Amino acid sequence: MTPLLDLSRFRNQDDLGLGLKQGPGRSVNKDGTFNVRRKGMPLVRSYELYHRLITMGGFRFLLLLLLGFLIANALFASVYLGIGMEHFVRPGGEGLWDRLCDAFFFSTQTLTTVGYGHISPKSHLVSAVAAFESLLGLLSFALATGLLYGRFSRPHAQMCFSEHGLIAPYREKTAFMFRFVNRRSNQLIEVEATVVFTLLDAETGNRQYVTLPLERAKINLFPTSWTVVHPIDETSPLAGLTDEDLRRGQAEFIVLIKAFDDTFAQTIYQRTSYIADEVRWGHRFKPMSAVGPDGHMVMDVGLVGASEPA
Amino acid sequence: MTPLLDLSRFRNQDDLGLGLKQGPGRSVNKDGTFNVRRKGMPLVRSYELYHRLITMGGFRFLLLLLLGFLIANALFASVYLGIGMEHFVRPGGEGLWDRLCDAFFFSTQTLTTVGYGHISPKSHLVSAVAAFESLLGLLSFALATGLLYGRFSRPHAQMCFSEHGLIAPYREKTAFMFRFVNRRSNQLIEVEATVVFTLLDAETGNRQYVTLPLERAKINLFPTSWTVVHPIDETSPLAGLTDEDLRRGQAEFIVLIKAFDDTFAQTIYQRTSYIADEVRWGHRFKPMSAVGPDGHMVMDVGLVGASEPA
Amino acid sequence: MTPLLDLSRFRNQDDLGLGLKQGPGRSVNKDGTFNVRRKGMPLVRSYELYHRLITMGGFRFLLLLLLGFLIANALFASVYLGIGMEHFVRPGGEGLWDRLCDAFFFSTQTLTTVGYGHISPKSHLVSAVAAFESLLGLLSFALATGLLYGRFSRPHAQMCFSEHGLIAPYREKTAFMFRFVNRRSNQLIEVEATVVFTLLDAETGNRQYVTLPLERAKINLFPTSWTVVHPIDETSPLAGLTDEDLRRGQAEFIVLIKAFDDTFAQTIYQRTSYIADEVRWGHRFKPMSAVGPDGHMVMDVGLVGASEPA
Amino acid sequence: MTPLLDLSRFRNQDDLGLGLKQGPGRSVNKDGTFNVRRKGMPLVRSYELYHRLITMGGFRFLLLLLLGFLIANALFASVYLGIGMEHFVRPGGEGLWDRLCDAFFFSTQTLTTVGYGHISPKSHLVSAVAAFESLLGLLSFALATGLLYGRFSRPHAQMCFSEHGLIAPYREKTAFMFRFVNRRSNQLIEVEATVVFTLLDAETGNRQYVTLPLERAKINLFPTSWTVVHPIDETSPLAGLTDEDLRRGQAEFIVLIKAFDDTFAQTIYQRTSYIADEVRWGHRFKPMSAVGPDGHMVMDVGLVGASEPA
Repeated sequence: MTPLLDLSRFRNQDDLGLGLKQGPGRSVNKDGTFNVRRKGMPLVRSYELYHRLITMGGFRFLLLLLLGFLIANALFASVYLGIGMEHFVRPGGEGLWDRLCDAFFFSTQTLTTVGYGHISPKSHLVSAVAAFESLLGLLSFALATGLLYGRFSRPHAQMCFSEHGLIAPYREKTAFMFRFVNRRSNQLIEVEATVVFTLLDAETGNRQYVTLPLERAKINLFPTSWTVVHPIDETSPLAGLTDEDLRRGQAEFIVLIKAFDDTFAQTIYQRTSYIADEVRWGHRFKPMSAVGPDGHMVMDVGLVGASEPA
Repeated sequence: MTPLLDLSRFRNQDDLGLGLKQGPGRSVNKDGTFNVRRKGMPLVRSYELYHRLITMGGFRFLLLLLLGFLIANALFASVYLGIGMEHFVRPGGEGLWDRLCDAFFFSTQTLTTVGYGHISPKSHLVSAVAAFESLLGLLSFALATGLLYGRFSRPHAQMCFSEHGLIAPYREKTAFMFRFVNRRSNQLIEVEATVVFTLLDAETGNRQYVTLPLERAKINLFPTSWTVVHPIDETSPLAGLTDEDLRRGQAEFIVLIKAFDDTFAQTIYQRTSYIADEVRWGHRFKPMSAVGPDGHMVMDVGLVGASEPA
Repeated sequence: MTPLLDLSRFRNQDDLGLGLKQGPGRSVNKDGTFNVRRKGMPLVRSYELYHRLITMGGFRFLLLLLLGFLIANALFASVYLGIGMEHFVRPGGEGLWDRLCDAFFFSTQTLTTVGYGHISPKSHLVSAVAAFESLLGLLSFALATGLLYGRFSRPHAQMCFSEHGLIAPYREKTAFMFRFVNRRSNQLIEVEATVVFTLLDAETGNRQYVTLPLERAKINLFPTSWTVVHPIDETSPLAGLTDEDLRRGQAEFIVLIKAFDDTFAQTIYQRTSYIADEVRWGHRFKPMSAVGPDGHMVMDVGLVGASEPA
Repeated sequence: MTPLLDLSRFRNQDDLGLGLKQGPGRSVNKDGTFNVRRKGMPLVRSYELYHRLITMGGFRFLLLLLLGFLIANALFASVYLGIGMEHFVRPGGEGLWDRLCDAFFFSTQTLTTVGYGHISPKSHLVSAVAAFESLLGLLSFALATGLLYGRFSRPHAQMCFSEHGLIAPYREKTAFMFRFVNRRSNQLIEVEATVVFTLLDAETGNRQYVTLPLERAKINLFPTSWTVVHPIDETSPLAGLTDEDLRRGQAEFIVLIKAFDDTFAQTIYQRTSYIADEVRWGHRFKPMSAVGPDGHMVMDVGLVGASEPA
């Protein structure tokens, strides 16, 4: 391995907390999660359950709600059937299907507190179970209210990054660049970027890390897109490295973005990374913004990753 | 173009992230939004929908809720009519209008879970649809609860700025000034101001930016009003510039305010800008506060923009 | 006026944003609000309404809810009476009182969605009004849910300050001191204190401000009480001042406390002030903490203001 | 007492706000609470009540809800019985038990707004009480909604610390070390550690505090575990101290962790401490992470405290 791939001569080394020993492959996944699995975690507890309900996909969440509703009613219907349908005032027939349905729909009418009353408790035992069921129903919907609000109000990943990082001539020098836009209608402000470059030391098998100086590390306003630029001058850890070197050293550019979401008064963090396969040499970004026909500036969000040979 | 309009001699250049290339007109609108349009945004998704429901006007929001309620009931009423009104126990007549109304109002009584019971399901199929409708109703109102809370608790623009910036004699010098008050009853504290001055470079068509030094950039308490002052001394980018120069260079004073809302423990950001047309030369602000008849200090919020020839 | 009362020789002058011109009396009230009134505020709007409902006393809030409930039902009852009680299926009598009560209680049963059904709509017009009322009821309770949550989760004033500031011998010098405790069960951490001393300049009628250096301006943990100490050495703005001087100069010690509430992850600010009348000379604080009979440290919160002649 | 146990020669003394005078035993408990009791606190008020309902255990909270539901219904049932069951339309019998049950279940059906209607008010007095009860029911469930959301969304203690601190050879020196992991699925970032070492001065009975320099005081990302290391070189307050010294001086390592919870956009603080009994000499931590059979990094959270003789 050539000395070029040894980052130890740089002062601003910082492994970000990722540790020197790592498994194969990238440290940070494209979606910003870490390439590590955990075992020995505590069993499902209320907080973990809440965390999963808050972060799971919307369709799956709705399906789960519907399923929970069906299961709860099936359970209570079983109890009512166990007590006996003769404990109810009801207009329905005495066949099994009629009794099953009446028990189930009395349960749904109780759980949702709609309570039409055409099926109603005759005995006190049924009244007691129904009282408990309607309490449970109200608490469940209280919980659902909190979950729905929690799902929407929590911070969301908002930045859309260019698929590739580029290494290309830039203002009489060469530079490593990537670009990102805000995919949401929120106003993001005080946006900060940190880029850490990492190589695998073939001798020790340890990863070495160095923070790359950026042409600009913070912008106050973020109306359109931001192209983050690391100029590759003679002091850069990338000076002299080739595409081949990056692949050999399992290079990775770890990107940390911090911003403030003006709409919800929340600080937002987002991460991504570019490995050697995701770096294009000699490409530059196409412009995303242009003055539209009516004289207004128009930005095409879909062009965030568009590049062309320099 | 005279060299006076070249801001490149100032060190503290910072385009705030607005970019050098811009369309015609102002960079930042009076209400703090950016003068840029975006296209290629993803289709309406749950988050975007939430964002719009949270930020739209109150009257429109209520109208939308009412409309959604009517549409949902119309849809369910159609289903009930499709199943057939003979599947209901109901006191009403058999005319089309009666059947339509009974289907619609059975739906409203189910969706809101009021469930009087004078119209009630006779068949199991209707009971099943009604169970689903009441579940949907409860979830919708859970959502509405979250939306209403989200609308009120999110940070709100609170500062009311003077309509014009003033350039006038100030303490033996000249100064650029603007004034703002808190329009709300909240306590704002740790208020910070940043003012960036920008001119269009006629040669390159690029905008140049420079941060203006302020007499005072932060106040701890904000009980009344704050007049932000940039003294125009010989080191100021505004030194020697005339009204004519500002218009020619499409000058803009971009204002960024940051504050902490004591009532809701939220950091709040607000932006505005003054273009050359919105600067009054030789005017000074009238006092807003005076000792009232009962000996108390009284501030007239409506006078925030009141100025008089100096 | 003696030169002693002129604070202009101190560098760290900072009026905190209170302004130099002020009315008579204190700048900051004991409860931390500012001694200024505002007029010309915009009329009651949804945000202001929300703000008042969130910050008003609990008893008044409940009374308002009850009143709103009664008024809403009275209004809808009037509508039902206007339509005519013959549009209802109801078991009640035909007297005026019976009709009034039936209209009112049909309304309450609709607004709360309890909907027993012993009174139920006969005509479609009544069904339509009732559908609207139950929608309104659900939205109102959605709003009430948000308000109740907003009331509890917003940051609360938590610190209880000693009634008097003390000026007394302290560690071989003299010092200005005050003490405060956390009145709540929350854990407060990273507590910071700022004390600004202000005197009225009799010649100009302006107030002069100077920030007092503190023996300690920040503590990381706040398990018990904190006595904030400004040592009065030869460099202190208080050096040489007497009780008489403080009264003559309408002195005020403005106190700003900032802390982080561990339980709700919120930054909390609190203010208070001590005027000359609220300063005791030659007194020192009594200890608040002692080792209890079982060997545990016990702090008596009620003793926060307890002092004794030094 | 040997001079070794005198920490006054160190500059970075900071008692963190714990105070010099303390009772026997540790300053900070293992769970991060302070070893001090408070008396003279104000009586139970709405905020305190909210605080307790938010922080109590989940099972106890549900039990309390159920109990509150039963008590509220028992109270309203008493009122209905006092008015007399002849004021109701009801199918039930006239025995005491029947009347008791009907009153109770009419109450449950009103409080939960299920309102079947098979028991319904005959007199206006009962209607009025029922109207009030259903209002109360809705407000209670509004409150429960807020409480449930508040319980889940508030910051939670997340870090799991090694049971013991270790003092052992580390990179050619000796070091004090402890380790912790995130027990939750949340992403924690920008994690900071502060360690304060404290000894009891046997002469004065006061505690002395000194902040220990750490090999690394902050990590940006926290994917796995973090071993916090204080190297014991000649400048360390621990230099030359033995296990016996630590016990004699009632030594305590107070640990403060600060982190940002990415999922909920909240700053989180957590505390713990190690007393002399909880320090193992000559032990080092076992690795927690290993490359799994499928080539992925796997961390066993349960091994956080696992150590072995060095």
